[in-house]
Amino acid sequence: MPKAPTQRIAILLYPGFTALDAVGPYEMLSRIPGTETVLVAERPGPVANDNRGFALVARAGLDEVSRPAVVLVPGGRDVSGQLRPGPVLEWLREADRHSTWTTSVCTGSLILGAAGLLAGRRATSHWLYREDLSRYGAVPTRERVVTDGKYMTAAGVSAGIDMGLTLAGLLAGDRTAQEIQLVAEYDPHPPYDAGSPEKAPAGLVARWRAAKPPLPPV
Amino acid sequence: MPKAPTQRIAILLYPGFTALDAVGPYEMLSRIPGTETVLVAERPGPVANDNRGFALVARAGLDEVSRPAVVLVPGGRDVSGQLRPGPVLEWLREADRHSTWTTSVCTGSLILGAAGLLAGRRATSHWLYREDLSRYGAVPTRERVVTDGKYMTAAGVSAGIDMGLTLAGLLAGDRTAQEIQLVAEYDPHPPYDAGSPEKAPAGLVARWRAAKPPLPPV
Repeated sequence: MPKAPTQRIAILLYPGFTALDAVGPYEMLSRIPGTETVLVAERPGPVANDNRGFALVARAGLDEVSRPAVVLVPGGRDVSGQLRPGPVLEWLREADRHSTWTTSVCTGSLILGAAGLLAGRRATSHWLYREDLSRYGAVPTRERVVTDGKYMTAAGVSAGIDMGLTLAGLLAGDRTAQEIQLVAEYDPHPPYDAGSPEKAPAGLVARWRAAKPPLPPV
Repeated sequence: MPKAPTQRIAILLYPGFTALDAVGPYEMLSRIPGTETVLVAERPGPVANDNRGFALVARAGLDEVSRPAVVLVPGGRDVSGQLRPGPVLEWLREADRHSTWTTSVCTGSLILGAAGLLAGRRATSHWLYREDLSRYGAVPTRERVVTDGKYMTAAGVSAGIDMGLTLAGLLAGDRTAQEIQLVAEYDPHPPYDAGSPEKAPAGLVARWRAAKPPLPPV
């Protein structure tokens, strides 16, 4: 029997991405047998994140990864530079035409929105930017991982791990996803309970809301 | 008043590290005001992880980061190559002489053990390797994050996020740690409950135990 073709999972990098947005789901998805997870960027090579002194290497340029089964877009502290028309949004639209799953973590959903891919879809984002999804015709939804058709979006940063594991289950079955969870010893016990605006001290939430920079006009 | 000196947090990279072991705590620690998190390796430049096609860039070589306040050693699928005497273990011993915290994620604790830093200490590791800590005179301890003096060790892979947040609280106070948790939206909701050998299907755990490769002699 011929071997099933390897499914490619493309994680998009761009200058200013948040490291854990990409690496959390990477660690879940790259362990799925029969798949290959590729970090892709406008050009191959090191891509700086949204902090100082950190770079992750993109193995492939956009033109080298044309029809991934899964597309994943991480967020970043300031994605306004990624919301303008250009090769990244064009690539996303083209990749989405053939993908099984088009997904995002954190403010990556704004980038999917700017590509025109979330119109009429339920979706989520980082809590500070969730309502901004309506700028792109999406329906902001307060869940950690939101699935609408083949579109899956995760809340802020660390939610990409939960999304990665959810996706692993859908791609490869519950047993494989459970094995990945076991191997990653993903049995979280945060030392604080401040991981959402509903749970965190109100003053912290208010300060972040007050300091939120404006997004560029759509 | 003179500005307090920047505290350096050094995350060690080596060929075969697990990406999330390094990037989970990185994302928590690099957001602490007044600190600088540096990825360090034997030589600066891209360092491949324990999967294919992924590399994280080490900004500094070992000789450039001599007295970090915090040392963090990630694990990897097969760390046997890191347990032998050499420049990495020498650097760890020297860095530990001046550190405020010496820490590890996953099988990184075996590397700390090989450097002679965990003798008589309570410590943890990835569940599959926890008992091997006794090879180095450490006391294997079944907790997600174990603190003994200035030594803090985390369980497998994703436990580094819980450790990073714990450490953030100790370095910068509860309020800062809660803010980091809020910004990272770290309110985990795994879609499965198989994140420890006690909770995962017994067959999976047994298979991993049976396939465990031997560690080199101490």
